[in-house]
Amino acid sequence: MKVVVLSGGVGGGRFLLGVREYFGGTDAEITAIVNVGDDMWLTGVRIAPDLDSIMYSLAGVNDTERGWGRAGESERVSAELRAYGVGWPWFTLGDLDLGTHLTRTHYLREGLGLAEATRRITARWPLGVTLLPATDAEVETQVVTAEGIMHFQEWWTRHRAAIPALGFEYRGAPDSQPAPGVLEAIAGADLILIAPSNPVVSIAPILAIPGVREAIRGASAPVVGISPIIAGAVVRGMAEACLTAIGVETSASAVALHYGSRASGGILDAWLVDSVDAGVVDVIEGAGIRAVAVPLWMTDPATTAEIVRAAIAVAAEPV
Amino acid sequence: MKVVVLSGGVGGGRFLLGVREYFGGTDAEITAIVNVGDDMWLTGVRIAPDLDSIMYSLAGVNDTERGWGRAGESERVSAELRAYGVGWPWFTLGDLDLGTHLTRTHYLREGLGLAEATRRITARWPLGVTLLPATDAEVETQVVTAEGIMHFQEWWTRHRAAIPALGFEYRGAPDSQPAPGVLEAIAGADLILIAPSNPVVSIAPILAIPGVREAIRGASAPVVGISPIIAGAVVRGMAEACLTAIGVETSASAVALHYGSRASGGILDAWLVDSVDAGVVDVIEGAGIRAVAVPLWMTDPATTAEIVRAAIAVAAEPV
Repeated sequence: MKVVVLSGGVGGGRFLLGVREYFGGTDAEITAIVNVGDDMWLTGVRIAPDLDSIMYSLAGVNDTERGWGRAGESERVSAELRAYGVGWPWFTLGDLDLGTHLTRTHYLREGLGLAEATRRITARWPLGVTLLPATDAEVETQVVTAEGIMHFQEWWTRHRAAIPALGFEYRGAPDSQPAPGVLEAIAGADLILIAPSNPVVSIAPILAIPGVREAIRGASAPVVGISPIIAGAVVRGMAEACLTAIGVETSASAVALHYGSRASGGILDAWLVDSVDAGVVDVIEGAGIRAVAVPLWMTDPATTAEIVRAAIAVAAEPV
Repeated sequence: MKVVVLSGGVGGGRFLLGVREYFGGTDAEITAIVNVGDDMWLTGVRIAPDLDSIMYSLAGVNDTERGWGRAGESERVSAELRAYGVGWPWFTLGDLDLGTHLTRTHYLREGLGLAEATRRITARWPLGVTLLPATDAEVETQVVTAEGIMHFQEWWTRHRAAIPALGFEYRGAPDSQPAPGVLEAIAGADLILIAPSNPVVSIAPILAIPGVREAIRGASAPVVGISPIIAGAVVRGMAEACLTAIGVETSASAVALHYGSRASGGILDAWLVDSVDAGVVDVIEGAGIRAVAVPLWMTDPATTAEIVRAAIAVAAEPV
């Protein structure tokens, strides 16, 4: 069984722990196609937050208390950069994390693509999941605000999404192409899952890479999404500010309708909402998307594996 | 008074502490023209060991016990790089030191030259000395051995200079030019000092930059060198392996004759040897270089300042 998961960073990593848990002991091949819209150059170093968040989660070296980065992290290099007055003072590069960034930068400077660099970096740990960046190109999400256009990281990390977003641009996306292996993974998949990641700044930048949306729409595998919204609230992160900017209500059903059914030009065959949102199942199904309400809190890998089980079940239902 | 010092790293830094001490409280302007032959790219980061050694010494943040690098250093990032299998496993990048490398790399990637990057980096501390790299170009010292040509750092740090050197190449030097300010500093100097640094891999790479040797030969200021050899032994480092490779005896007089007198195509007007080498003063003077024997152990800045005093005295002597 070949499973493809479209994924953002921290929430995606948590979801992938459940996917790996569900398929543990089988010969399933799990591939995550990962958002690179948060990536950036900082003090000459290439940072890929979503790829790294997922890797750290799957490797079990993530900081579960803080919710991001490496466990046992320190910030000695960052303190030096601040003392020299370079970098973004509001963006902390952990020392352990920096080891990953430097390794990636080394490979990129050698002329390798991000996908190959990621392959070599992730080889350090037996992750059980193949991580593919959506593209080797530098497609970085920009946020349009009344104060100007800024990099997603500046809006998200520095301003905590408090400046109203007027829109999002996936700069460079039109001229980019999917990373090696992305289209092949989608075409060869038996199941495609949309992780409960931010629809606007995690999943949309993946779909913005020319060819990816079309590949998903044309895939033989069923496509099942998991709602990142539970009871009208974002499970984690600040997705509401993003959804509002693109005119989508922060609700499990609105996000499903935003993705749309494959039958009508969208990317979904089915959508999972949380049990508390059972009331919107009919609305979603009315839009041609099979829907089922199950517990969606990803408390631990075993609980998250049950979400995967439900996704497979709904995917197997007759249309 | 304008003082220019040609300098390598650790020993040069120690000498510069004495120069600064000597001129303390005066309006003297001290400029160090620093070797960049040890510089290199490592995991996408530009490392300039001599510039940094001098800066750390003058800033008082160097590790005096270990003899190099920053005090209170740690190696967390380096350990990560090793775990990922990149970089040179025998070359440790300290975390604090890496802050400097990243800052420099950031500026270089922005398109600044090394001299301007150095100006910005050194602005962090009131050093009392202006640090100028010999060149903005990437002129890296290569060591010719029977096992092939290798970067100076590999020969020096990895192999501890144990592989016999057959020669040295200052790769890129013929096509390089002095960094902005270098020729002006030499031309405008009232005193030029050659620090007791390694003649072959610290001073020679500076002189290999087209125009530098000529500027020193044509300078109106007296040029006084300080012997890095005391009693036939190198004060620090492994200079003997370097001198032997170029056919120069490891002695205070042989190094002086190797530099040569300005009157006969060399760069020296005068040369300081240690008191124990008083017996070679006549040989050196016979080569047209004024020589004087004084204590040359740089025990502390005050002691080193006495060397500077002796250099000024010998420079003032009638030819």
